Amino acid sequence: MFVAIMGYGTVGSGVAQVIADNNENIAKKSAQDIFDVKYILDLRDFPGDVNENKMIKDFNIILNDPQIQVVVETMGGLHPAYEFVSSCLLAGKSVVTSNKELVAAKGDELLKIAREKNVNFFFEASVGGGIPIIRPISQCLAANKISEIAGILNGTTNFILTMMIDKNMSFEDALKLAQDNGYAEKDPTADVEGFDACRKICILASLCFGKHVYPDEVHTEGITKISLKDVEYVKSLGGVIKLIGRAKKLSDDKISAIVSPAVVKNGSQLASVSDVFNAILVRGDAVGDTVFYGKGAGKLPTASAVVADIMDCAAHLDKRKEFGWESGTKNYVADYNELETVMYVRAETQNKAEAEKDINSAFENAVFADTASSDEIVFITDCEKESELNRKLDNIGSISVLSKIRVVDY
Amino acid sequence: MFVAIMGYGTVGSGVAQVIADNNENIAKKSAQDIFDVKYILDLRDFPGDVNENKMIKDFNIILNDPQIQVVVETMGGLHPAYEFVSSCLLAGKSVVTSNKELVAAKGDELLKIAREKNVNFFFEASVGGGIPIIRPISQCLAANKISEIAGILNGTTNFILTMMIDKNMSFEDALKLAQDNGYAEKDPTADVEGFDACRKICILASLCFGKHVYPDEVHTEGITKISLKDVEYVKSLGGVIKLIGRAKKLSDDKISAIVSPAVVKNGSQLASVSDVFNAILVRGDAVGDTVFYGKGAGKLPTASAVVADIMDCAAHLDKRKEFGWESGTKNYVADYNELETVMYVRAETQNKAEAEKDINSAFENAVFADTASSDEIVFITDCEKESELNRKLDNIGSISVLSKIRVVDY
Repeated sequence: MFVAIMGYGTVGSGVAQVIADNNENIAKKSAQDIFDVKYILDLRDFPGDVNENKMIKDFNIILNDPQIQVVVETMGGLHPAYEFVSSCLLAGKSVVTSNKELVAAKGDELLKIAREKNVNFFFEASVGGGIPIIRPISQCLAANKISEIAGILNGTTNFILTMMIDKNMSFEDALKLAQDNGYAEKDPTADVEGFDACRKICILASLCFGKHVYPDEVHTEGITKISLKDVEYVKSLGGVIKLIGRAKKLSDDKISAIVSPAVVKNGSQLASVSDVFNAILVRGDAVGDTVFYGKGAGKLPTASAVVADIMDCAAHLDKRKEFGWESGTKNYVADYNELETVMYVRAETQNKAEAEKDINSAFENAVFADTASSDEIVFITDCEKESELNRKLDNIGSISVLSKIRVVDY
Repeated sequence: MFVAIMGYGTVGSGVAQVIADNNENIAKKSAQDIFDVKYILDLRDFPGDVNENKMIKDFNIILNDPQIQVVVETMGGLHPAYEFVSSCLLAGKSVVTSNKELVAAKGDELLKIAREKNVNFFFEASVGGGIPIIRPISQCLAANKISEIAGILNGTTNFILTMMIDKNMSFEDALKLAQDNGYAEKDPTADVEGFDACRKICILASLCFGKHVYPDEVHTEGITKISLKDVEYVKSLGGVIKLIGRAKKLSDDKISAIVSPAVVKNGSQLASVSDVFNAILVRGDAVGDTVFYGKGAGKLPTASAVVADIMDCAAHLDKRKEFGWESGTKNYVADYNELETVMYVRAETQNKAEAEKDINSAFENAVFADTASSDEIVFITDCEKESELNRKLDNIGSISVLSKIRVVDY
């Protein structure tokens, strides 16, 4: 079967490599023909590259070649990926993508075109790199009503937090180390500000709950404000700080979705996820909690997920898979201020005894960290609506809040 | 679509319930007709049961009804499950089973019949209950060469070990508690002796490496000999004792496969798996390590996996899925005595100084637990061929070995 790859960067070249290395194995497992990469679209030149003879610069060659039934999109970015992918689908070709930005922004539209043209649009590699997650949710857990999904969705920030937790490194030093190791880009904004995790929780929430969730609807906080002090206090309270993307079904036409640093209690399956690893927890009515763990990025892990999608396309050229993912609706994502939460709080105080008294009268079951220094007070609040919780905190005159981190219960 | 269920025990009744509860949801997700359970085969009577009008006692009614294209086998045991399932496949019906004993003993034969008749034989629920594992291995990780698979495959023994580790309970008390909680059978042999985990590692190894592994080829040790002393010493060495089933590709026609208690180091994703939870680690060349975690048993988790398989059958009535699982060959599973391993050892000694000297001269890099009582010595050996390691231990005259537990490196 002939395949075209659009974008010969890290993932695209990995796809070509995995196909070349594993073709026999793939053919045996899928009882299919081997794959033949006919074209690789990239505007750059790759002189001397093993695939040099397949490189093309004109998208129309792929679009107009009837031999190409499956197209791989590994260009990244919204444009021209969106135009190319929609053109391919409209031309009756199945498309496999690893592009989370594209799926998070346009998944509903592209799936609609795929439905109309009876072709497949697969995106396993867009979340969790090589970790099987899209297919397990859409197929293996299909007999469940999923109530909640949460995960460590970004390896770069998890590496930085791990260095802060385990090695006592500052955020800046840990970021520098991540960059030196190739885990973080020169401009790390998309990772450290949570935008990457936001795209992934949008994809997962759309898939789990059936309506598209757009990135700008999801309240997103990064990890740049996390201090070593908070890391230590949270440790003394029996937890770790992780960047968590999460979404929950509230009613048939309402969900919550948020990306923020969160206190995860030790013993949780998410607490022990270190370094660049990702983990995704899915809560179903029949199955309970399941967790999927592995490397969330990297050339070969991501490429292996793309190739598995190509195999699935090849086995289903005449049969579309339904994801039950419709367009979004207005006010579908609830205002996070109106949701109940528990908060870790670190505050400055000049009178600790008074502050503790005030906090106790605002939060009946407040838990205090006894490791706090003499001019600070650290505590966990009750579970309350976030706006109400913040109002209470603002009203406690004996403290001045320095940092707040939501506490989750996975 | 009409479905028949054979066996109305825990799982079978759960399947009927999940279908009844989730039918609309299922139809939406799979873009298919709803499922209609037409027959339930069971020799027992269920007066007053919600499905009483579907109960039948004659298997031939299912076999001879052309409306039934998918049959669910949740009877358990080898006979008559094997005869019923093979008859259904021969009659051109797809079969979904949760029966690990059947798949571990006859998977290759049944898949061969399914291949000849171009129907599907699915068994997601046979390993890990509701945890997606069979489909992720056979589809999502299909572009990987899998080198190794290991897991906590039995919830009952993991519950018992967790009680021993966390609550300092004896094996007997923990087993009693497991029985009181309904986690263990009155006769707990299949769980505590490792037979259940053995069947599951056979299924996983067959699937990952492509040739059937039969239960009697797998060296299997249970947890009945684990003492609280060992639990404590292992804790002081920075690990936990878990019942691990594992298999590894050694060459194209040789694998290792073993079930035994094992020392898992803290920090491993398997170390933090507590209570009745299961976790399965798959090591692939492209993806690295992935771990799948969740409830490995229970009515609804297992039933939800069965129903997902039914959905997949319904979507593929005309299209068989290939698992690449052939019959086994002689001497395919290596003798565990010939494999390299690291061993935790607890031994009696009357002269600790001399024992330590002897052990150090036998094992260059032996690590000693400094918590050992005055008449015992506890240590971790070098990595050596197991037969050679045992020969060395036998030859150390200053110690008398009390217990040995393999150390794994996941």
